[in-house]
Amino acid sequence: MLPRMERRRPIITLTTDFGLRDHYVAAMKAAILVQIPDTQLIDITHHIPPQDVLAGSFALERAVAEFPVGTVHLAVVDPGVGTTRPLIVVEVENQLVVCPDNGLITWTWRRHSCDAYELIWRPGRASSTFHGRDIMAPAAAMLATGHDFDAIAGESTEPNLLNIALADAATGRGQVIYIDHFGNCTTNIPAGEPIAGRVSAKGRVIGPIRQTYADADSGAPLALIGSSGLVEIAARNASAAQTLGLAVGDEVLIGP
Amino acid sequence: MLPRMERRRPIITLTTDFGLRDHYVAAMKAAILVQIPDTQLIDITHHIPPQDVLAGSFALERAVAEFPVGTVHLAVVDPGVGTTRPLIVVEVENQLVVCPDNGLITWTWRRHSCDAYELIWRPGRASSTFHGRDIMAPAAAMLATGHDFDAIAGESTEPNLLNIALADAATGRGQVIYIDHFGNCTTNIPAGEPIAGRVSAKGRVIGPIRQTYADADSGAPLALIGSSGLVEIAARNASAAQTLGLAVGDEVLIGP
Amino acid sequence: MLPRMERRRPIITLTTDFGLRDHYVAAMKAAILVQIPDTQLIDITHHIPPQDVLAGSFALERAVAEFPVGTVHLAVVDPGVGTTRPLIVVEVENQLVVCPDNGLITWTWRRHSCDAYELIWRPGRASSTFHGRDIMAPAAAMLATGHDFDAIAGESTEPNLLNIALADAATGRGQVIYIDHFGNCTTNIPAGEPIAGRVSAKGRVIGPIRQTYADADSGAPLALIGSSGLVEIAARNASAAQTLGLAVGDEVLIGP
Repeated sequence: MLPRMERRRPIITLTTDFGLRDHYVAAMKAAILVQIPDTQLIDITHHIPPQDVLAGSFALERAVAEFPVGTVHLAVVDPGVGTTRPLIVVEVENQLVVCPDNGLITWTWRRHSCDAYELIWRPGRASSTFHGRDIMAPAAAMLATGHDFDAIAGESTEPNLLNIALADAATGRGQVIYIDHFGNCTTNIPAGEPIAGRVSAKGRVIGPIRQTYADADSGAPLALIGSSGLVEIAARNASAAQTLGLAVGDEVLIGP
Repeated sequence: MLPRMERRRPIITLTTDFGLRDHYVAAMKAAILVQIPDTQLIDITHHIPPQDVLAGSFALERAVAEFPVGTVHLAVVDPGVGTTRPLIVVEVENQLVVCPDNGLITWTWRRHSCDAYELIWRPGRASSTFHGRDIMAPAAAMLATGHDFDAIAGESTEPNLLNIALADAATGRGQVIYIDHFGNCTTNIPAGEPIAGRVSAKGRVIGPIRQTYADADSGAPLALIGSSGLVEIAARNASAAQTLGLAVGDEVLIGP
Repeated sequence: MLPRMERRRPIITLTTDFGLRDHYVAAMKAAILVQIPDTQLIDITHHIPPQDVLAGSFALERAVAEFPVGTVHLAVVDPGVGTTRPLIVVEVENQLVVCPDNGLITWTWRRHSCDAYELIWRPGRASSTFHGRDIMAPAAAMLATGHDFDAIAGESTEPNLLNIALADAATGRGQVIYIDHFGNCTTNIPAGEPIAGRVSAKGRVIGPIRQTYADADSGAPLALIGSSGLVEIAARNASAAQTLGLAVGDEVLIGP
């Protein structure tokens, strides 16, 4: 549950694959504003590739990592809308997440200590095509205002998780898990302990971990610790993904 | 006029064809914030195709349908900027709309009970290329704060309307009026009364009205009641518009 | 420094080349909200072409011109992140700008009276790849809340400026400095004094200054005073940039 003091003018973030062309994001915001007209609404991104649960999972974890205590995060990448797939509420870092139980919580689960509950609240009447607006947004608003938690969240549950985890730094073997619009390739290798050795990706040696983009020549690839605390493969003023032909899932090694 | 109690921290929504690349949307927001620094500003969409008044009309109606009492909606799709085309203020569902009188109010007018007035307020000095910033945004802010209505809105007026209306369910004959970025095709056929029979579009039979996307096989088209309360033609995990070659204006029939 | 009275619920704007696909914009907002949960956060644009300092400079000036006294503008187009390039704080029109000292302030500097200071505040720990989140956003938040100015901004400084200025109206010789997504071409020729004569661009005569887009035939180019107070070359219901083959830097003349 959220600390009481944060509930006056709550922050609710939104992460979806709805895009910004249609009115769908605004419809979710309206469902929140009907309850709390002065919510601080923050878009994480609405450009998750359609139904790409892994990409959504990565963006959602970044939101959890960056936002203050008391924030409620609403994440809707939901290929199963209209089926009986469960919805969940997750407590993490004194924040809450509301999302479908389809793996979207995975990356948050891997990097933070979490507790998950089934979202049991249902409105009197919901469409069968837009649970983001009809169920998850109102539930997020109720949670943000300190509504009785037990009326919204039920039994503790083990969420469904994607088959992706933090790499074991000891083995030095990981993979690309996210590529941003600059072409920077984030891996699942954490920066927690000293990383020695040369980084290679898809059989090509990139070199040792550098400090910043400017440590490479223009256009040249380099490995560094990205702003999310993970090993990242970048290229100075260029797209590493394009330069190196990297895609999500490609193997990254750190070795002698 | 708006209920007094809603005026403290007003909600103003924005619907335009300005895109998000330039500073134009922010310029309209600034014109509002100069008057009301703590306005709750909500983007419906700024990706209406340039000068597509019908698409703008559809998005604006969705905003009116979803937002709380007291909201002011600012809609600017305005090919006639700089000419003498009138501007209007519309009262609908205890909310207000400010927009050019060029048909943008059409879909709101068809689905809700409305009263329209000419927007008579003008600033001391306005550009002739950006009435959204110079006239409509300041007028929306004044209306949102409960400024004297009669100083802003003049005579009652019959707005210009596009040649599109709700289909007569009795005849079972309608058309596609909006296609979203998933390729879902919304029609002008309302869900108000039981709909029996098979839906067909452009001569191709889709089938009876289903409950949800998951009622079709992956990639297959289906008809259902969309989240806007209208018959929609969709395809599970695919674009119905692409699969069926549908465009705005194409005929949709419900028959035996 | 900002007027005290504006500091209660501050307005902070954001102008970047981060795009909206990744979580980076939200990460900067989170860094602000951690300090001031009810900041009024306004996006100017995040679609500055990557590392296009001139385009960023133009958008930033528009923000300064339009927003109310007390606003803090955060602008991050920063090819030099991780190097030792300085950051600056600029006082202008009773507003503040925080940005890298790489020319991003140029167009604001040319059109307004400004004072620049080196941004000396640094966090205990900053990444070397995301100074927008780790240094500039927290500094903007501190400035917006009236934090001790001298702890954040140091010595007065002469900022680095791009080689672009307001055209001398007397000579009638200027250039295209920004092209918007409609294809309207804004020049550096100010509207301050009466402009007589015919405008030509790239050797093609456009004609005299008109009042509004509707003063040309559909598809035809025209010159007018745009909403930023500068001579603009547009085309009615068409892209002037495309019709005339214009690009940023192309010469524009006003002559007999």
